[in-house]
Amino acid sequence: MNSSPLDRTVFIISDGTGITAETFSHSVLSQFDSVSFKQVRMPFVDTVEKADGVVGRINRCAIDQGNKPIVFTTLVNSEILSRVKTADALFLDLFGAFVEPLEQNLGVKSSHSIGKSHLSASSIAYRNRIEAINFSLAHDDGQFIKGLAQADVILIGVSRCGKTPTSLYLAMQYGIKAANFPLIPEDFERNTLPSTLVPHKHKLFGLTIQPERLTEVRNERRPDSVYSSLAQCRHEVAEAERLMRRDSIPMLSTTTKSIEEISTTVMQEVGLDKHSTY
Amino acid sequence: MNSSPLDRTVFIISDGTGITAETFSHSVLSQFDSVSFKQVRMPFVDTVEKADGVVGRINRCAIDQGNKPIVFTTLVNSEILSRVKTADALFLDLFGAFVEPLEQNLGVKSSHSIGKSHLSASSIAYRNRIEAINFSLAHDDGQFIKGLAQADVILIGVSRCGKTPTSLYLAMQYGIKAANFPLIPEDFERNTLPSTLVPHKHKLFGLTIQPERLTEVRNERRPDSVYSSLAQCRHEVAEAERLMRRDSIPMLSTTTKSIEEISTTVMQEVGLDKHSTY
Repeated sequence: MNSSPLDRTVFIISDGTGITAETFSHSVLSQFDSVSFKQVRMPFVDTVEKADGVVGRINRCAIDQGNKPIVFTTLVNSEILSRVKTADALFLDLFGAFVEPLEQNLGVKSSHSIGKSHLSASSIAYRNRIEAINFSLAHDDGQFIKGLAQADVILIGVSRCGKTPTSLYLAMQYGIKAANFPLIPEDFERNTLPSTLVPHKHKLFGLTIQPERLTEVRNERRPDSVYSSLAQCRHEVAEAERLMRRDSIPMLSTTTKSIEEISTTVMQEVGLDKHSTY
Repeated sequence: MNSSPLDRTVFIISDGTGITAETFSHSVLSQFDSVSFKQVRMPFVDTVEKADGVVGRINRCAIDQGNKPIVFTTLVNSEILSRVKTADALFLDLFGAFVEPLEQNLGVKSSHSIGKSHLSASSIAYRNRIEAINFSLAHDDGQFIKGLAQADVILIGVSRCGKTPTSLYLAMQYGIKAANFPLIPEDFERNTLPSTLVPHKHKLFGLTIQPERLTEVRNERRPDSVYSSLAQCRHEVAEAERLMRRDSIPMLSTTTKSIEEISTTVMQEVGLDKHSTY
């Protein structure tokens, strides 16, 4: 059975999880709107035997579909790589393309060793990530106020504006201890930021959102409530923005932004990029 | 001031968040053990003016350090890219290396459009991720039993074996609804899995851990308690493994594994890789 030429199967082959290659392939392939890609991730290909199994799957796919599959690889072992490359496919070798120019430029050989991943569970950076995830969970939604002194950043904003997913992403990806704290109607009546936040003003970052989007999000959770009404959302967003502006707290609208984009902006504005040093 | 030739600055330059390029650069650079890299991420470089600013920063770095910085780029706009490339550096152009062979193979031109990221906040995949994060938070640690029917996978295991970070990672990266449910001493006394889990046996996945590591992790949280003692950890782990083996539940030791590695194995074993189709 021949598939359409604009339906293509993409194999992601790695001796590790393949997550880096998968993310990268998404990014490159999103530049080809007119093609429909079906992705197959084949992780932990760390022996010649597994490589031979992979070759069989790629070749069967090539025959079934009547066109060459696309193969992204991050394989550091050259024997495994050369075995995989015997398959009938277009190979995009992510390491091959960059390791050699780096070797020349740096004047040292790469270690070509499997399992040298930056994700290694034994690294300090990894332990920091897990600790930060636990921190973010413990400091979600204004819980456990005492720990705010340890936070790298405290996200503030109205309920359901995106604070929790952003805190978790910052923790998981960067090991940043991100707490979050809701701004609620009582704060607007009192017309000040919650007093517990005042000592930490230098590490506050405000998230805001269009009321029209907020009412959608809140309605998914509590349909037809005052809490979810457009009037209430408009009121809360306007008040929260006013409080944040008055105290010169940096602010970002999350309406059309992904957690990756929000997190990147937070890190830039709060000066947390130091965490990405390694 | 000249730095050591084995101290190098790495710039990550993107018109988006740069997270894909950053992750990829970590992966490649981890193959060079003997070099100490300092990474600077420059996201949202989406105008020629910003490109010129970037060139200035790279050139200053090259002069200060007395060697060429390494630059990873994911820039789709060719004008911005060519401007950045005037800087004095080793350029590793992630898109350039792969977009052209893909264009030839697919017989279509890439869109070269900024903001076509797979992370786009308006995509269905993105909304699924946010929904899955909320699901995983609501179904953490055996909370909200009623929703287990909606779970794609339910992670089980003793307290602190890695269930929560793994559930959150599966949700955040793949939009997988991952619940988690603790196995506790009462289950071991009763000698059966919790009855609430029985209807969902086909989507259970067991996490386990070496008792020596578990006692470390628990001691960070509750030092010098019975809960954290090696004897208690040994008992709970042995009992949990026995219950899971008896019911033929797939099982993985998290002791030396990262959440990325655990998640990848869970997806393979439970057959959740369908979620990565796009």
